[in-house]
Amino acid sequence: MTEPEPPAVAKLSLAETATEPVKGKKEQEINPWDVQAATDEQGNVLEFDYHAISQKWATKLIDDELLARFERVTGHKPHRWLRRRLFFSHRDLEQILDTYEKEGTFLLYTGRGPSSDSMHIGHTIPFEFTKWLQDVFDVPLVIMLTDDEKFLFKKGLTLKQVRAFARQNARDIIAIGFDPKKTFIYIDSDFFYDGYGKHFMHNVREFEHLITNNQVRGAFGFDGSTNVGSNSFPAVQCVAAFASSYPFIFGLDHKAEDRYAKLAAIPCLIPCAIDQDPYFRILRENCSRMPLPSPKPALIHSKFLTALQGAGGKMSASDPNSAIYMSDTPNQIKKKINSHAFSGGQETKELHEELGGNPDIDVPYQYIAYFEDDDERLVQLAEGYRKGTVLTGEMKKQCVEMMQAYVKRFQEARAKVTDEIYEEFLRPRKLEWAGNPKVERKEVTEPAKEGAAEGAKMGEDGKPLTKNQLKKLLKEQETERKKQEKAAAKAAKEAAQ
Amino acid sequence: MTEPEPPAVAKLSLAETATEPVKGKKEQEINPWDVQAATDEQGNVLEFDYHAISQKWATKLIDDELLARFERVTGHKPHRWLRRRLFFSHRDLEQILDTYEKEGTFLLYTGRGPSSDSMHIGHTIPFEFTKWLQDVFDVPLVIMLTDDEKFLFKKGLTLKQVRAFARQNARDIIAIGFDPKKTFIYIDSDFFYDGYGKHFMHNVREFEHLITNNQVRGAFGFDGSTNVGSNSFPAVQCVAAFASSYPFIFGLDHKAEDRYAKLAAIPCLIPCAIDQDPYFRILRENCSRMPLPSPKPALIHSKFLTALQGAGGKMSASDPNSAIYMSDTPNQIKKKINSHAFSGGQETKELHEELGGNPDIDVPYQYIAYFEDDDERLVQLAEGYRKGTVLTGEMKKQCVEMMQAYVKRFQEARAKVTDEIYEEFLRPRKLEWAGNPKVERKEVTEPAKEGAAEGAKMGEDGKPLTKNQLKKLLKEQETERKKQEKAAAKAAKEAAQ
Repeated sequence: MTEPEPPAVAKLSLAETATEPVKGKKEQEINPWDVQAATDEQGNVLEFDYHAISQKWATKLIDDELLARFERVTGHKPHRWLRRRLFFSHRDLEQILDTYEKEGTFLLYTGRGPSSDSMHIGHTIPFEFTKWLQDVFDVPLVIMLTDDEKFLFKKGLTLKQVRAFARQNARDIIAIGFDPKKTFIYIDSDFFYDGYGKHFMHNVREFEHLITNNQVRGAFGFDGSTNVGSNSFPAVQCVAAFASSYPFIFGLDHKAEDRYAKLAAIPCLIPCAIDQDPYFRILRENCSRMPLPSPKPALIHSKFLTALQGAGGKMSASDPNSAIYMSDTPNQIKKKINSHAFSGGQETKELHEELGGNPDIDVPYQYIAYFEDDDERLVQLAEGYRKGTVLTGEMKKQCVEMMQAYVKRFQEARAKVTDEIYEEFLRPRKLEWAGNPKVERKEVTEPAKEGAAEGAKMGEDGKPLTKNQLKKLLKEQETERKKQEKAAAKAAKEAAQ
Repeated sequence: MTEPEPPAVAKLSLAETATEPVKGKKEQEINPWDVQAATDEQGNVLEFDYHAISQKWATKLIDDELLARFERVTGHKPHRWLRRRLFFSHRDLEQILDTYEKEGTFLLYTGRGPSSDSMHIGHTIPFEFTKWLQDVFDVPLVIMLTDDEKFLFKKGLTLKQVRAFARQNARDIIAIGFDPKKTFIYIDSDFFYDGYGKHFMHNVREFEHLITNNQVRGAFGFDGSTNVGSNSFPAVQCVAAFASSYPFIFGLDHKAEDRYAKLAAIPCLIPCAIDQDPYFRILRENCSRMPLPSPKPALIHSKFLTALQGAGGKMSASDPNSAIYMSDTPNQIKKKINSHAFSGGQETKELHEELGGNPDIDVPYQYIAYFEDDDERLVQLAEGYRKGTVLTGEMKKQCVEMMQAYVKRFQEARAKVTDEIYEEFLRPRKLEWAGNPKVERKEVTEPAKEGAAEGAKMGEDGKPLTKNQLKKLLKEQETERKKQEKAAAKAAKEAAQ
């Protein structure tokens, strides 16, 4: 058992270091536009309760059994962020593994709301994980930059500003190292209207038609003062999970009058932070009701990356001292970690050697845990800290070096992102991927006949399913999953009592 | 005084002929998606009260003085539909005449929601009027086919169906005889996403950002069960009035990062039925709040075309016997008018000769009044009917011949709408127009400098207004107009008491 404990977030009061002190007991608030940790009676910020949010939203926790199956199916050891449960929860990841075993391919989809022109490690880590998923599965990936969302939801930003942010963010994302042959990155306010977005936007219209003001009010807390653009935005983020929104990726005509039923039937996996789940619950509830029905997308949820200030914090682009930025100099990194990183060590060297430190609340240790792949080394580091043989200064030094190296690698890669490379990633085009090497590749190159739903799904007789058969199948799957979700929620509730 | 009375709608009960009898007293209901005449205590359908709706919505009634000025400014005798007040109400038509005198040009904008694949005379008459306005003013015209609206608001229609309707309707509209050099027709679900719609859609996002769920609830009665697409649709119909949505019309780059402030400053005139006014009130209230502000668009409102069944009816595509269709054969027209047109004549020839008929409620007479341009002839016809010298059969015969001739001319024109002509009208392109021959033409061909608002409006010193000056001017205009609207509403209220 060399697996270290997941890096827990601090259990101590952070009222001194919190940038916006709050008073009085408050529940944690997690939604796509606002993430606030709970506070106790004294106004002290508490750690996020991820098990509670998983239970509340009826997601499944990622367990060793699932990861063992993941390794069997993919032939890859699960990433340290899965092993250490930074990605801690999921929906229907088993079904994606089923699909991958049988069909050999699916669509990967993730995104980012460009709220500033520089990204920090809290932004890059989810993309690093997505890149790893792409490498492991060898499937097509779409990355959506929702500048429209940021414009609609955030006060004081112009459309021109968020569009500029999106372009800078796209270059940062490219620097992560995605394969241009199998990755399409798009900026909403360009892609939708540049001549390739018709099928996407027709999906939006149909999805908007399915969901009511009451539904988005229930899911997101929208009210009378919400602007009508924000109110309908969820449809945009939802249909991005439909492969039928990107016919060109599959070599199909994006100007065709009809969207492609066989693309709509392609399953999707979405890695995202847990706060984005409400979007995809709406999607999962309604995707089988689309004129061309789609299966429920699967999700892998991450926790929030710990802020330099420690527990209950989320790295924030509006607080430069809350995070290591990908544009930081080596000196800035050193200064931030030495001055702002919450320490689990003792006040003096003597006390530390006597009592030992607490790695569970030590931010430098946690940052090391994000990047150190060697489980054994990490256990030793934590044990040394607890015993007092590893000093606070040594822990910080290791963290500084690791972060400096990570940011340096990133900046070197970023400098190599030329205009040509940028344009290639953002150009709507046919992607190339191999998928599961054990499954014979089926090309999706024939346009569907008008009105016919030629699902990629095959019936037991090996023939493509008819539209009605596909609908029936999706309905059965939905019933089954609802049953499973209810059972899981019940079990979780009972376990918590 | 040869001017005949405006064709009044019937004052008699129509309970026998109404297709959907209703019981109990009910106020008239007029909004963009539902038009219902009032009913009395017995459930009898009453005529529409256009003065009441004008007063309620604080529009101005078109009067002889305004029409006299119209004639002075344009050099054209007002169209019979203005003289006879089929177009009865307006907002800021004076300002458009001011603009035309000073600047020489403005944008004409109208549209249609394609709810079926065939149009009737209730649809073609507003387009005939718009064509007349285009001929008189010689200005660019955009015609919007809101297939997205019909899909979102009408139950049971697929996006594919409304798109097909829109294409058929576009051909019908072309057959009216618009000048392809100065007319751009577009289908929302094509134009927005075919590569030319970026500036339009960026205007949509900004407008969506300005208006809240409460505002659209107040204006349109939307509620929790409204789908989110319908809820945000008003933004689409509104920004269609901004010339900055169509840079190509003015020879400017539609792929430019920035929209053009000088296009945003171009005034717009919208001829439409009175039920569309709520859309444009929202627009008028918010257009000066756009990042690139636009002046309030002017409106000319029409009454509803009288259904064959008479008063309180609106021709309906879902009731084939309520209207003369542009696809009807001469025999169908004859049969519809002879069998379904509400008559103001007496039961027998003898009674008619003795008592005379009532042209005010006689649908054949009213249809003749739509098309007979000779005021004198029309007065004689009405007088003859009242005296009993013109019989019901004669009135119907004249109506049948007139309608047959109109529909025949239309069908001949429609047959000549080739695919090439259709595609030319729908192709985003630079339009050509001359505007007011008395005003030297200013070409709008230079792109605005980034961030600068080079309004088409000029200051008193002849120099273009700065962005702040333009904002100030628009604000002053808005204050002045609000004052005028309030005064008009008050005067109308007092007059009604």
